[in-house]
Amino acid sequence: MIIVIKNNSEKKQLDNLVRWIEGQGLRINLSKGENTTVLGLIGDTTRVDVDLLNSLDIVESVKRIQEPYKNANRKLHPEDTIIDVAGRKFGGDNFQIIAGPCSVESEKQVIGIAEAVKAAGATLLRGGAFKPRTSPYAFQGLGDAGIDILVKAKQETGLPIVTEIMGAEHLDKFVDVDIIQVGARNMQNFDLLKILGRTDKPILLKRGLAATMEEWLMSAEYIMSEGNKKVILCERGIRTYEHYTRNTLDLSCVPLMKELTHLPIIVDPSHASGISRLVAPMSMAAVGAGTDGLIIEVHNDPPHALCDGAQSLRPEQFAELVKKLRLILPVVGKKEI
Amino acid sequence: MIIVIKNNSEKKQLDNLVRWIEGQGLRINLSKGENTTVLGLIGDTTRVDVDLLNSLDIVESVKRIQEPYKNANRKLHPEDTIIDVAGRKFGGDNFQIIAGPCSVESEKQVIGIAEAVKAAGATLLRGGAFKPRTSPYAFQGLGDAGIDILVKAKQETGLPIVTEIMGAEHLDKFVDVDIIQVGARNMQNFDLLKILGRTDKPILLKRGLAATMEEWLMSAEYIMSEGNKKVILCERGIRTYEHYTRNTLDLSCVPLMKELTHLPIIVDPSHASGISRLVAPMSMAAVGAGTDGLIIEVHNDPPHALCDGAQSLRPEQFAELVKKLRLILPVVGKKEI
Amino acid sequence: MIIVIKNNSEKKQLDNLVRWIEGQGLRINLSKGENTTVLGLIGDTTRVDVDLLNSLDIVESVKRIQEPYKNANRKLHPEDTIIDVAGRKFGGDNFQIIAGPCSVESEKQVIGIAEAVKAAGATLLRGGAFKPRTSPYAFQGLGDAGIDILVKAKQETGLPIVTEIMGAEHLDKFVDVDIIQVGARNMQNFDLLKILGRTDKPILLKRGLAATMEEWLMSAEYIMSEGNKKVILCERGIRTYEHYTRNTLDLSCVPLMKELTHLPIIVDPSHASGISRLVAPMSMAAVGAGTDGLIIEVHNDPPHALCDGAQSLRPEQFAELVKKLRLILPVVGKKEI
Amino acid sequence: MIIVIKNNSEKKQLDNLVRWIEGQGLRINLSKGENTTVLGLIGDTTRVDVDLLNSLDIVESVKRIQEPYKNANRKLHPEDTIIDVAGRKFGGDNFQIIAGPCSVESEKQVIGIAEAVKAAGATLLRGGAFKPRTSPYAFQGLGDAGIDILVKAKQETGLPIVTEIMGAEHLDKFVDVDIIQVGARNMQNFDLLKILGRTDKPILLKRGLAATMEEWLMSAEYIMSEGNKKVILCERGIRTYEHYTRNTLDLSCVPLMKELTHLPIIVDPSHASGISRLVAPMSMAAVGAGTDGLIIEVHNDPPHALCDGAQSLRPEQFAELVKKLRLILPVVGKKEI
Repeated sequence: MIIVIKNNSEKKQLDNLVRWIEGQGLRINLSKGENTTVLGLIGDTTRVDVDLLNSLDIVESVKRIQEPYKNANRKLHPEDTIIDVAGRKFGGDNFQIIAGPCSVESEKQVIGIAEAVKAAGATLLRGGAFKPRTSPYAFQGLGDAGIDILVKAKQETGLPIVTEIMGAEHLDKFVDVDIIQVGARNMQNFDLLKILGRTDKPILLKRGLAATMEEWLMSAEYIMSEGNKKVILCERGIRTYEHYTRNTLDLSCVPLMKELTHLPIIVDPSHASGISRLVAPMSMAAVGAGTDGLIIEVHNDPPHALCDGAQSLRPEQFAELVKKLRLILPVVGKKEI
Repeated sequence: MIIVIKNNSEKKQLDNLVRWIEGQGLRINLSKGENTTVLGLIGDTTRVDVDLLNSLDIVESVKRIQEPYKNANRKLHPEDTIIDVAGRKFGGDNFQIIAGPCSVESEKQVIGIAEAVKAAGATLLRGGAFKPRTSPYAFQGLGDAGIDILVKAKQETGLPIVTEIMGAEHLDKFVDVDIIQVGARNMQNFDLLKILGRTDKPILLKRGLAATMEEWLMSAEYIMSEGNKKVILCERGIRTYEHYTRNTLDLSCVPLMKELTHLPIIVDPSHASGISRLVAPMSMAAVGAGTDGLIIEVHNDPPHALCDGAQSLRPEQFAELVKKLRLILPVVGKKEI
Repeated sequence: MIIVIKNNSEKKQLDNLVRWIEGQGLRINLSKGENTTVLGLIGDTTRVDVDLLNSLDIVESVKRIQEPYKNANRKLHPEDTIIDVAGRKFGGDNFQIIAGPCSVESEKQVIGIAEAVKAAGATLLRGGAFKPRTSPYAFQGLGDAGIDILVKAKQETGLPIVTEIMGAEHLDKFVDVDIIQVGARNMQNFDLLKILGRTDKPILLKRGLAATMEEWLMSAEYIMSEGNKKVILCERGIRTYEHYTRNTLDLSCVPLMKELTHLPIIVDPSHASGISRLVAPMSMAAVGAGTDGLIIEVHNDPPHALCDGAQSLRPEQFAELVKKLRLILPVVGKKEI
Repeated sequence: MIIVIKNNSEKKQLDNLVRWIEGQGLRINLSKGENTTVLGLIGDTTRVDVDLLNSLDIVESVKRIQEPYKNANRKLHPEDTIIDVAGRKFGGDNFQIIAGPCSVESEKQVIGIAEAVKAAGATLLRGGAFKPRTSPYAFQGLGDAGIDILVKAKQETGLPIVTEIMGAEHLDKFVDVDIIQVGARNMQNFDLLKILGRTDKPILLKRGLAATMEEWLMSAEYIMSEGNKKVILCERGIRTYEHYTRNTLDLSCVPLMKELTHLPIIVDPSHASGISRLVAPMSMAAVGAGTDGLIIEVHNDPPHALCDGAQSLRPEQFAELVKKLRLILPVVGKKEI
C-alpha cells in the first residue's frame, strides 16, 4: 500500500500516522521527494482501512498494491478451482448450462421444463421459489412449496437444482438444493454471506447491481473466510446510464475475473437485458469471452401462461441455441457438453 | 399504464394479452392508429409487472402513469408526514441534526461526543454498533455492547439515539433505540424491510448505492405496507462514473422526493464524499435544497484516536457549522433549532 | 407520442397546449380518465421537442412512440444497408477486420504493420494521424504528414485506409482516405457531422463516451439528413462506475442496434478496455454478439518501440486471433474472410 | 508518478521501461519489495502517457501524484483568479447572476427579458443564438442574427452578454460577445478549445456530459496553454443511472474544484434537471456549496409563447429567488450583489 502525504503537512500528524501504522504490525518505507512524501507499507495490508486513510487531513491519496482479498486471489491460488456439483464440474475447461423457469409455478410446469431443457443439453435446473421483487405487491414466489417442487423435478430428471435464498431463516429448507444462489440485491448482505460461509453448499454469487469487481470478490471473500470455498461467480449486468436495456451486460469482466481469481464465473444473459431476443446473441458472446457456464431462463408456454414470448426462451429456441454453443465451445478451449 | 404494441403483431397474441390483463381486474382502452396500437389500462395497476410486459414479443414499450407506490405517495397523502421521535419532529417545517461518531468505540468516547454535539445544537445522537464493511477482515463494530453504550449515552444526555441494524436476528437488542437505520446495502433486503414494517419504530431508510428514487420509495412501501408508517428517507450519495469522491451526493432528490412523497427526507453529507472538508459546504447546500435534517459524523479526537482529521468533523467544527446553518434555516422556511 | 397531463391542470393551460400541438400539423387523440388525461399525438412527431414538453407545468410525462430518427430507422428501411469501401463490404452477411497502429509514426512502421496485418487477414488499414488527447501536452499526431504515410501504405498494400478527422478545416486532406472516422469525443460535434454529411465518404461514427443508443443514431441522422447515407457505427465502450477497465464494452448494443437500424455496426475491442489481454476474448465475444466487423490496434514492436506489450496486439497475436475468428464466423451466419 | 510492476516480470522488459522513462528526462526511484517492484518517477510527469503505461504487459498499475494540469492548478497558483467581464468580477468573494432566455427568438423578447432580469438583480445576460440540438430536425437557433439581437440588448441594458459558440468558423461573429460559452458536448472538441485559447475573451467552459473533474480541468488547460487564462468553469449536471431528472447536478464538485483550481466556478441549475420547479431550490443549494455564480434561464411568457411554465423561470419567480439568494450570500462569505 502506498500513501501519498500532502505538502506542508505537520510533522506531528505524520508521526501520529506512522506510529498508528506500525502499531498494526506493518513496516514503512518513507520516501521524501521535493514536493511529496510517500509512505510504502510493507506487510499484510488486508486489514488496513483505505477509506479511513483517505479521510485523513494529511493524506492526499492511497493506493493499494496488494489486493484486499486472499482466499479468492489468483495470485495466492494460481490453479483454477473446480467445483463439483453432483458430478457437474464448474471451472477449468468444463462448461455447464443451467436452465429453467424464472418462477416455480407448479409441479407440472417445472417438470415439463426440466425434461425439455435436459433433452436440449442443460446440465442443471434453475427455478425461483423465493423471489426478490421491487414491489411488495408483486408475487413473491411459492416459497417452501416451490423448493419442494424443484426437489421433485430433480428426482424425476436427475438434474441438480439451483435456487435463490433471501434470508438465513430459510436455510433449513435448502438441504436438498445443490447450489444456493445469492441474488444481486443481497450481494452485500454480509450477515447472510457469513452464514452461507459456514455451510458446505456451493454458492452462486451474483454481482450486485452496481458492484465493482473488487467488491464482488470481497463478498466472495466473506463466504470463503468462514470456511466455504465453493463460490461460483455470476455476471448478470450492471447499472449504467443506458436504459434501453434493464442492465448492461459487462462481458469484459469474464476474462478479467479469470485473471484476478481462480473461482469459476458464469453469465446470466436473461436478466441483464430483460429482452428475450438478446438471450441467444449474448449467450454466444459470453462463450466467446470465455465464460465457464450460462444460466438461462426457459419457459414452457402452456396454454394458461401469460402469452407467447415471455422474457425467457421457449424450449425449442433454447435447443437451437445449445446447438450453436456446441460449435463454439471447442474454439474457446472448453470441453463438449 | 400504457402499453404500445408492435406493428405486425399477431391478433392471437394481442387477444391473449388483452384477456390476461382483463383477468387481473383491469379495463382496457384500445386505440388503433395507422402504425401503432396502444392499450390504456384502467384500474389499479400497482400489481402489474412492467418487466414482464416489456419482455413480451408483441410489446414495444410500457409506460406507467400511476406510481407503483401507494402508502408513500404524496398524491394519495397530500399532507407532510410528521414523525415524532421522543419529542424531536421530522418533516414539515421542522429541522433535526443527528450527530455522533462513525463507530461506537467506548462509553467514554460516545458520552464525550454526545455531550459536545448536544452543546453545539445536535438534537439526536448517532453511532455505529453493527458496521457493514466491504471486507470481512475489517472491524465489524462492537455489536450488542455498542448498543448498550449508546443507550447509556442517551440516559446521560437525553438525546434520542439512531443506529443501524444489519439483520432481523438482532432486532431484540433495538428496544431502546429510537430510530433504526437501514443502510444503503440493505435497502433491498426485502425480508428485513418486512420485519421492520411490523415494528412501531421510526426507520431511517438510506438510499441504496445505485437506487433510483422509485426503487427507494418501493422499499419504503415494503415497510409501510406491513403497517409501520414511520419512515424517514436519507440521501447519502449515489454511485456515478466520477470517482474523485466516493459517491456523488444527489441533492436534487430532496425537492423531487418532497413532490413524490409526504415522508421526511434528510441528508448524510459525511458518507457521500468520504472527505471531511466537504461536510460543511454540502450541509449548507442540503439545507438550501430543502432537507428536513442532517446526519453528521463527529469525532472527539482523544489522544489515542488515529490522528487529527478523520472523515468526521471535530466538535468545534461541528459547532461552527451549526451556527451557519441556523442563519440559513429561516430563509428556507424551517423553524429554529 | 403520448403526453400525460397532470391532475388538476387548468383548462386554459391544456387548451394552450392543444392549440400549440395542432399548430405543428399534428392531430390529437384526447382520452380523459378518472385521474388522468392523456394526449395521443398523431402525425410526424420527429420535430417535436420532448424536453420542452416535459418542462411544462401541466405535463406529467411524455413518451415517444415513433423513433425521432428516420434515415437510420430500420422500420422505414427494413433491408440491411451494405456499404462498399473499395470492394470491402460492410453489413449483411459480410465481415471486415480493420487493423493497424494506434498512431502513425513513420512510413516504415506503417507499411510494416500494413503488410503484416494484410497477411494475417485484415481487410482494411487503420492508423491515427490526428490524435484527440485529453492533455494538451501529449503528442497530438503527425497530422497531414501522417495521412500522407497512410496513403503510401494503401498504395503499397492495396488496403483501403481509415483515419480520424478532428475538425472540418482538415477535410481537404482526406481526399484519398477511404473511411473517415469521427471519434467518441466528437460524436455530438454537430457542425462537423453536418459537413461530413455533405461529402460522399463512408463515415465510421464512434459511440460517444456516455451516449445512449438513441443519441448515437441521432448523430448518424445528422450525417444522413445532409445526404450522405454511408454511416458505419462503431461501439467502443461506454463510461460506467466500474473503473477497472477504462470503459465498459457494451456488446448488447450490437443485436439491439441491428433491430433499430439498417446501418452496419462494428466493434473496437482495443480502446474499450485499454488492456491488450482483453482484445482477443472481447473480439471473440463481439463476433458471438453478431458484429459486422472489428477495428483492432496492432503494433509491430520494432526494437526502438517503448517495450514489449503495448496496448495493441503484436502481429503474431493478431494472426492467431483471426484464425479463431474464422472458426466462429460461419456459426453466426457471416461469410468467410 | 508511481508505477507498480507485475511479479515475475522479465528483467529485459523492466530495463526497457526504465530506459524509456529516463529518455523522457525523468529520474527513477526503484524500490524492490518481496512481492512487488515499485518505480517512483521524479521530475515533470505532465507529458507522461498514463494510458500507455497502464497498457504495458509488465505494469500492474500506475498512480499519478502530480496533477497533469499546470495552468489551472491551485497548487501552482494559490490565489483565486478574478476574471473581470466589463466590470463584473468572477471569483474570490464576488458573485454574479447570469440570466436570460434559452433561445434568442426576437429583439422584443430578448430586450424584454433583459430588462426584467436586470431589474431583479441579474448582472449579465445569456441567450442562445447557436443551439446544439440532439436532433437535426429541431430548431438550431437564429445564428448570426441571434447574436445581433443580443448585442442590441446589451446596448439597451448595459448587461454584458454570454452566448455559446459551436464551431471556430463562427468566431468572427463573437467580437461583441463578452463571454464565449463552450457547451457540454464540445468540452473535448480540442480544435475549438485551442482556437479559443488564442483569443482574449473570457470562456465559460461547461462540464461535459460525463466528464470527470480532471478531464474538465484538462480542457481548461487546453485553453490556458494557448495563452488565454480567462476560463470560468460551469457545472451543469452529469449523466448518471438516475433518469428522473435529465442529469444529476453534482454540487460537491464546487468545493472540490475550489481546492484543485484557482479558476472561478459557477452552476447552471436550469439545464441539469430540465425541471423548472428545481431551479430555485438547486440555486439555493449551489450558493450553500460555495458557487461563484449562477446561470439561470428566464422566460418572459408573452401570449404567443408555448404556454405557461416552460423550463425556465418567469421573471417574477426569478426576482423572488434573487431576494432569497441575497440573504444567503453573506453567510457563505460572498459580497452583496
